[in-house]
Amino acid sequence: MALSLPAGTRLVAATHNPGKAREIAVLLEDRFQVVSAGELGLPEPAETESTFTGNALLKARAAADRSRLPALADDSGLSVRGLDGAPGIYSARWAGPDKDFGLAMRKVEERLHEIGSDDRFAWFTCALALAWPDGPAVVVEGRIEGELTFPPRGDRGFGYDPIFLPEGGRQTFGELEPAVKDAMSHRARAFAQLKAALFD
Amino acid sequence: MALSLPAGTRLVAATHNPGKAREIAVLLEDRFQVVSAGELGLPEPAETESTFTGNALLKARAAADRSRLPALADDSGLSVRGLDGAPGIYSARWAGPDKDFGLAMRKVEERLHEIGSDDRFAWFTCALALAWPDGPAVVVEGRIEGELTFPPRGDRGFGYDPIFLPEGGRQTFGELEPAVKDAMSHRARAFAQLKAALFD
Repeated sequence: MALSLPAGTRLVAATHNPGKAREIAVLLEDRFQVVSAGELGLPEPAETESTFTGNALLKARAAADRSRLPALADDSGLSVRGLDGAPGIYSARWAGPDKDFGLAMRKVEERLHEIGSDDRFAWFTCALALAWPDGPAVVVEGRIEGELTFPPRGDRGFGYDPIFLPEGGRQTFGELEPAVKDAMSHRARAFAQLKAALFD
Repeated sequence: MALSLPAGTRLVAATHNPGKAREIAVLLEDRFQVVSAGELGLPEPAETESTFTGNALLKARAAADRSRLPALADDSGLSVRGLDGAPGIYSARWAGPDKDFGLAMRKVEERLHEIGSDDRFAWFTCALALAWPDGPAVVVEGRIEGELTFPPRGDRGFGYDPIFLPEGGRQTFGELEPAVKDAMSHRARAFAQLKAALFD
């Protein structure tokens, strides 16, 4: 088997969030029959790895092995150089059970203040893993660099977007037009790489 | 770029051991021009990940990004169920700076004795990662299950081979004919998977 996915292949999006599964289907240009891990009743594995790619791979592998279908998973987050890469793979966890990213953004600002760092360099990472049942996996990572700004600005986007100024830009990811952000984001870069690798 | 490696491609074996680089060239059926990371003067990255695949990926990624060529790395080890998967990614480290696997095998036996476990189930894993410069990577894992036997038997093979009885067999990996072992090993299984994925 060569590592390509013919159009029309049934593919599991290793997520329990139906919105995210739909978004993955669109990012893959609706080439595949995307079904979510939630719809298939698959369990959500604990994200025990130490890297974005490790966690994406763990989720994709679990979904592929249980469903016997190719499965795609992502793992994303914000890394701050002044915090030695934190929150990193813990980006979602910093927002707590209520997914309160206002809280998470304040935590980033407070930690930088506590350690007296004025290094605001940061980057978003999106790792994608596509795994075949009991078989190989393809992994890619997309990244966008920039710097942090406080207080948060803009009510678009998601997560840490309102404190992230992409390199060379004046508007945060929370202020940018979604189409502009979506064209340059870590997520777009990861999907572009995956598509270049898999689509002929 | 589709994820395949045309015959004749220059490929880095992410190792500083010339014997291992040659072995990789042979396992890939001498299809590629294999050059080792050592020959190219590349640094050896620290193996900081928590899984075999993570470490293989880290080594392949480092070699690919520095050399600007596709790079292949492996990471292998023995996992013992009665020791919660140890020595696992620390398999080589248990042998110490002198690579004394007699010592490492005694350590396995002693630890099992210390915790009073009579669970001898164990498996070898070989993870392979093939990374393209600033691009995607393909990862595979080959595994063979079996059980441990003490004292060590046989002077063939390498590492923990003399205490490993592959499932259904009576001879340890240290006693088996190399050709027999090489046909069934975790390493053979990983390379078979990689070749199936990459060679059309």
